Amino acid sequence: MTEQLLLDPARKPDMAGVKRAAKKIAAILPPTPLLPLIIEGTTVWCKAECLQPIGAFKIRGGWHRLTDLDEDQKHRGVVAFSSGNHAQGVAWAAQRLGIKATIIMPADAPAAKLENTKKLGAKVITYDRLTESREEIATEVAGKNGAVLVPSFADPWVIEGQGSTGIEIRQQMIDQSGSEPDHLVICCGGGGLASGISLANPEANITVVEPEGWDDMKRSLENGRIVPVRDNPPATDCDALQTLLVSPLTFDILKEHQAKGVTVSETEVHHAMRIAYEQLRLVIEPGGAVALAAILAGKAPVTNHTALTLSGGNIDRKYFAKIMGDR
Amino acid sequence: MTEQLLLDPARKPDMAGVKRAAKKIAAILPPTPLLPLIIEGTTVWCKAECLQPIGAFKIRGGWHRLTDLDEDQKHRGVVAFSSGNHAQGVAWAAQRLGIKATIIMPADAPAAKLENTKKLGAKVITYDRLTESREEIATEVAGKNGAVLVPSFADPWVIEGQGSTGIEIRQQMIDQSGSEPDHLVICCGGGGLASGISLANPEANITVVEPEGWDDMKRSLENGRIVPVRDNPPATDCDALQTLLVSPLTFDILKEHQAKGVTVSETEVHHAMRIAYEQLRLVIEPGGAVALAAILAGKAPVTNHTALTLSGGNIDRKYFAKIMGDR
Repeated sequence: MTEQLLLDPARKPDMAGVKRAAKKIAAILPPTPLLPLIIEGTTVWCKAECLQPIGAFKIRGGWHRLTDLDEDQKHRGVVAFSSGNHAQGVAWAAQRLGIKATIIMPADAPAAKLENTKKLGAKVITYDRLTESREEIATEVAGKNGAVLVPSFADPWVIEGQGSTGIEIRQQMIDQSGSEPDHLVICCGGGGLASGISLANPEANITVVEPEGWDDMKRSLENGRIVPVRDNPPATDCDALQTLLVSPLTFDILKEHQAKGVTVSETEVHHAMRIAYEQLRLVIEPGGAVALAAILAGKAPVTNHTALTLSGGNIDRKYFAKIMGDR
Repeated sequence: MTEQLLLDPARKPDMAGVKRAAKKIAAILPPTPLLPLIIEGTTVWCKAECLQPIGAFKIRGGWHRLTDLDEDQKHRGVVAFSSGNHAQGVAWAAQRLGIKATIIMPADAPAAKLENTKKLGAKVITYDRLTESREEIATEVAGKNGAVLVPSFADPWVIEGQGSTGIEIRQQMIDQSGSEPDHLVICCGGGGLASGISLANPEANITVVEPEGWDDMKRSLENGRIVPVRDNPPATDCDALQTLLVSPLTFDILKEHQAKGVTVSETEVHHAMRIAYEQLRLVIEPGGAVALAAILAGKAPVTNHTALTLSGGNIDRKYFAKIMGDR
């Protein structure tokens, strides 16, 4: 079903597209800061994407994709599935461009994400993860209005848009530290951010980080072909990273780049969130803290020029308070 | 006592000095982001100084002051009093310049501020606010080593350094919104930040914000002359803003600028901290949230081009968790 709705499934995202996306995004959004964090005497550079207006990097892919729709497509509107950050990215872009957006979200998505997506003017349809099929709902919506599907990662525009993060990281590291990154540690759900950043930084080593049990990208990279997550994956706080199966578009880029995958535990994620609080004064959601968690746990090495993504900060306040109050 | 230790009590901070400070600071610290916050349909621009490496704007004054010491002064070292943010600003600059720093801090300062100041290599001497005189301790330290006092606000370099915030705000507003600010709402303890920003933005209206009961600047501006806070000021979470008496250096600038003073309650401050969490994903300490609190409470008007300072984010994690868990 997904393939049918794609605008151009054959197109491959590339560096030229990333650069074009970066230019479009720079015209409307100032770069998020790249903040230094000293870890055992070495500076690790943290890209604070939680400071985007929607609290996550997903605003980039949404903007690059929607601004490239033609007039007829804009008129028909867009549809997306998302647990929340991609939802807000698409809704934000749609609101600014006067495009009608319908977002299909799990009913158990964080309240803050549901609320913020509605505030951005999108029509939100919730579904039960266990009993309903989001694909069926999307097909119905798309069929009714001819709306264009904006995938959360399996789309060349979305990957290129997220890749603009990597253009900014590279330039900011040169400006702030005198060197481009030699190692990039990236939060990974479907791999849109990781593959986009890889395109933007062909020379750097890439480590993608997933929550334990949701390591489809890690296992796929190890197997040399796409494999899904194992049956009955464990519960995780990382709602943004619960991808069951990655896409050839993202996988092929990361495979070619010889990216490495690692996983982190919930305990490691919560610890990283507390470090981000104390050292950077940032609110990071669990899924946005996995790259930092991997660095702090020693699962991804700190090289001389390491950068990592803090990819989102949308977490319900009382739950954040609970994690901050622990230990 | 303070006057004796000042390097040049007669020098007045000025726009040229602010510009020079801004240049020195831009060479070592990237601008903190100016983040949009939509309040009832209007964008208010928030200067996120909590994202400085020490979590507060005080790094600016410390850097401008210490880099202008001569070799003999650098050799003698520096001494400062502070509840924590100025402490870290001076310690950070001293560490980078190889200068010995002694910081005199109240024993009841937030643990995070005490800890971070020590981590930056400063010698910390604590005193009991009720039974000991920080001036006596400082005189002893200064007398023994000939150390140079770096006041937290009553110093032309410190004011100019903090004023660099205003240079950045002005440029970022032009870049991001097409207009310079017409109204600046600024957190106020001794007025170093507010007076510095005023120098940098001679055309903008200025509102300074203090916690209820600690409104010496507001009362001084209303009286046209410096008056101290009233006896027995109430307890406040805004440890960074507990100034009993402002300085002629800061007061004169704000008076000439026709700045207006307002106060906010602890409840309003906590509400502002929760809004900063939800809308901006930032950790703001109480003293750093008073300007936002004033805007949200309708005590400072939202004009077409308003900017405010989120001046610091150093607050003990469990206490922050408590405030976030409320309501």
